[in-house]
Amino acid sequence: MGSAFSPGLTELIDSLRRLPGVGARTAQRMALHLMQRDRDGARRLAAALSNAADRVGECRDCGILTEQQLCSICSSPKRDRSLLCIVESSADVIALEQATDFSGVYLVLGGQLSPLDGIGPEELGLDRLEQRLAAGQISEIILATSPTVEGEATAHYVREMACEYAVRTTRIAHGVPMGGALEQVDQGTLSHAFLGRQEYGGSSQ
Amino acid sequence: MGSAFSPGLTELIDSLRRLPGVGARTAQRMALHLMQRDRDGARRLAAALSNAADRVGECRDCGILTEQQLCSICSSPKRDRSLLCIVESSADVIALEQATDFSGVYLVLGGQLSPLDGIGPEELGLDRLEQRLAAGQISEIILATSPTVEGEATAHYVREMACEYAVRTTRIAHGVPMGGALEQVDQGTLSHAFLGRQEYGGSSQ
Repeated sequence: MGSAFSPGLTELIDSLRRLPGVGARTAQRMALHLMQRDRDGARRLAAALSNAADRVGECRDCGILTEQQLCSICSSPKRDRSLLCIVESSADVIALEQATDFSGVYLVLGGQLSPLDGIGPEELGLDRLEQRLAAGQISEIILATSPTVEGEATAHYVREMACEYAVRTTRIAHGVPMGGALEQVDQGTLSHAFLGRQEYGGSSQ
Repeated sequence: MGSAFSPGLTELIDSLRRLPGVGARTAQRMALHLMQRDRDGARRLAAALSNAADRVGECRDCGILTEQQLCSICSSPKRDRSLLCIVESSADVIALEQATDFSGVYLVLGGQLSPLDGIGPEELGLDRLEQRLAAGQISEIILATSPTVEGEATAHYVREMACEYAVRTTRIAHGVPMGGALEQVDQGTLSHAFLGRQEYGGSSQ
């Protein structure tokens, strides 16, 4: 079916289906839209894809995706390089940058510790973290790995490492989302939030 | 905000947002997915887009999007060129090809008659249709324009034209969708279906 599409359009539709969340119908709609109404958009996207695929790599220091040697965060003189926030992916950095006014730098692990899959500390660049800890360059490590089994294991591993060098380690808070109705929060989160309850004073939240 | 993305990634995300139905979040997810996990997919999509943008045009006879001079339908010896189905867009051809076993050919208007917008019969290629009717090449015209005011006006215009040459004209049926619960069908469709009720015999559906 769908043989009514010419080879060029078929290839375009198949390529669009490689995008996450794009099925056959959506890919077809995208392809026809670009060809009928936005050829400039198609050319611009082609150029952007090809440029990014060839040039985007990882920041030398933090590992975030960038086509520069040092990303804009690591190269900023305003950032406190002694505050290090550990995340799993570049998307996490973007989310934190958009939501917080964190003034330190990041370390993008690119995954979680998972010995069964052959992902040990070195694959995540934790050996380089140890060097930075040993050099006394870090005053606080903020753990922002996922609240999953592997994410917790990764956080635990980093904490042990930081302990050896007596570096303060914090973990971002997990609990009931702000504005979330209690009855709609999943059991795991609610149980975690209940066990992790904190003193309620007038000054702090 | 979002300044953590390098220029190359920012440009990729902005270009992806030109795709229909893709917002800021989705574009970001697509860009990171391609860069982190599917660079081959990014290169393939770039090549397909650039090839299609440069080469896809309209079939000389029916106007469907294709990079060939004649599309696969118009160039097929199995197709009956005296049966002509009139549609508004290439997407309509694909939908009909997938759902029916129509053995004729198509005419893609690329729009609807809309005098206020400066879209007259010539802009839709209806002058060429008149030539084909005059040459006696057509035995039946099947109208598959949209059931909108402009679509109906277009269908009406074509029917008048075909009448002059005594060519049979049919219109695809509009009514309650198969499998649709009556109570969920919109009023316009239900009213149309009721007024357009047909004799119910044992043989036909």
